[in-house]
Amino acid sequence: MNLLFLGTSAGVPTKTRNVSGIALRESKGRSWYLIDCGEGTQHQVLHTRLSFHSLKAILITHVHGDHCYGLPGILASAAMGGRKAPLTIVAPAGIKTWLEATCEVTQLSLPFALEFIASDDLPSVEFENIAVETFSLSHRVASYAYAFTERKVDAALDMDKLAQKGIPRGPLWGQLKQGFDIEFAGEQLKSHDYLIFKNTPRKIVIAGDNDQPDLLIEACAGAQALVHEATYSEEMAHKAGDVGHSYGKLVADFAEKAQLPNLVLTHFSPRYQRNPHASPSIENIREEAQRVYSGSVFLARDFGEYTLEKSGHFSEVVGE
Amino acid sequence: MNLLFLGTSAGVPTKTRNVSGIALRESKGRSWYLIDCGEGTQHQVLHTRLSFHSLKAILITHVHGDHCYGLPGILASAAMGGRKAPLTIVAPAGIKTWLEATCEVTQLSLPFALEFIASDDLPSVEFENIAVETFSLSHRVASYAYAFTERKVDAALDMDKLAQKGIPRGPLWGQLKQGFDIEFAGEQLKSHDYLIFKNTPRKIVIAGDNDQPDLLIEACAGAQALVHEATYSEEMAHKAGDVGHSYGKLVADFAEKAQLPNLVLTHFSPRYQRNPHASPSIENIREEAQRVYSGSVFLARDFGEYTLEKSGHFSEVVGE
Repeated sequence: MNLLFLGTSAGVPTKTRNVSGIALRESKGRSWYLIDCGEGTQHQVLHTRLSFHSLKAILITHVHGDHCYGLPGILASAAMGGRKAPLTIVAPAGIKTWLEATCEVTQLSLPFALEFIASDDLPSVEFENIAVETFSLSHRVASYAYAFTERKVDAALDMDKLAQKGIPRGPLWGQLKQGFDIEFAGEQLKSHDYLIFKNTPRKIVIAGDNDQPDLLIEACAGAQALVHEATYSEEMAHKAGDVGHSYGKLVADFAEKAQLPNLVLTHFSPRYQRNPHASPSIENIREEAQRVYSGSVFLARDFGEYTLEKSGHFSEVVGE
Repeated sequence: MNLLFLGTSAGVPTKTRNVSGIALRESKGRSWYLIDCGEGTQHQVLHTRLSFHSLKAILITHVHGDHCYGLPGILASAAMGGRKAPLTIVAPAGIKTWLEATCEVTQLSLPFALEFIASDDLPSVEFENIAVETFSLSHRVASYAYAFTERKVDAALDMDKLAQKGIPRGPLWGQLKQGFDIEFAGEQLKSHDYLIFKNTPRKIVIAGDNDQPDLLIEACAGAQALVHEATYSEEMAHKAGDVGHSYGKLVADFAEKAQLPNLVLTHFSPRYQRNPHASPSIENIREEAQRVYSGSVFLARDFGEYTLEKSGHFSEVVGE
């Protein structure tokens, strides 16, 4: 699994940072998922190798403009680029209403179907190689986190459990091995209960705007990395609370408690500059996080790329 | 008056060209008008000296996304930047509906008033230094051209006419001289009928998407420059007609007929490349236009700047 940040600025774009957008790529092939789609996300995509043809789904964390105003344009461009395959959109219900109004007013007719799934119902969504779970956060509007778990990990069937349950050798074994849940003797059986994994499935949690990181404790179980906003540093804690945002130390305290091995911070207020000598600098956010957290802290930058290997090792991709 | 192109690509952005957006600046001071606002227009503005505080109005030519999807974001950023002054929006009525839906769904509350004027009524709008007239075009949806005429030109009062009409020396003379129309003895009197201009007022016409340039004959009377789309070259004339667009020669034929001194072509399909040796190249559009047109042809490029001097001389601004 691979993360490519398309925008890391909060609220407004700056000369060097766009508003929110993250591409999560599968470990094999070209399939990818877009998490949030601020204005200009499609422009950022033009400077990557991502193709709108291999985009599996767009997931929106909440309705604020810096996380969704790029949606109509990206859909229009995918259409003009010849996309025909249906596209899944997981988003708060308001986004569906808004896109429908947008298509009507601006006479945008898409040559592909949009399959809407309302985040408000906290859905679990299974794609071919990735399973997504949804979790509620705390912000000025309904906001969600999405947990992405790899489905097809190297695994062997647990023969003891299969025998115990009396599941006969045959197609059901194949389905379980490929990560599909099955129905047997009137019971729903979870694939992962009948597999012995050689590696822990890769899992990354990407959270929307949120002022209570503790809400992510369940979402983060078994995750190797959490991507979370740190709009401010601790000296702005009061302001952060007022506007429903987090600051570096708050997120890092949670990551330490949850024993997360990797924490990627993003969505920095434009007041924080990249230059470590500037004041305030994004580096201040790293420092306060690293002081309370024993895992690895990463500060996302536009076009910054991270890889989560089969072994669970998470690192920034440097160069090409 | 000064034009600064913020985007010159049709339909979708490319790596080097954004979708439509043009800044028209007044000859003195920092006031400006934005004509069309495709996605990413605010990002382009960040790389100029334009300020959202001195933006007088946004005028949208038609509802297609590549001309308006940047509106919500630019308004949100102006708000976050502290703008308080009301903002005039001249646009097809659908844009008002869409912006209202957008503000509601995305919880965008603007700290300044939006003063909507429906282009569908072909309004004349008077700003302090610029008067705008609206004209109908022909496209797949209702599309409009806006003619910008300078209001305060160096002019002397026409004493003979004042005497003829019996207008007494006093405040009314001042108003007429400053370009304001007045009411006198129950009659509406046009300022320009009582002035002797040292120079012709500067006038630039900016047209939206359009497949019938001839519709602009009235709009272009007295104009020194027309900005018009040339989405295609003549070899794509059939396609252009199908989708309601113009090609270079079609616009140039009109400009010749209208005896326009300057023609700026823009809104080039992404198939046309900037490189003159590429095939097809935007230069093909210039060549076919220049073959039938005796005035000056300019091919707009992103961040390309043009100035219209008091004398009526129109030229590209080169360097700084």
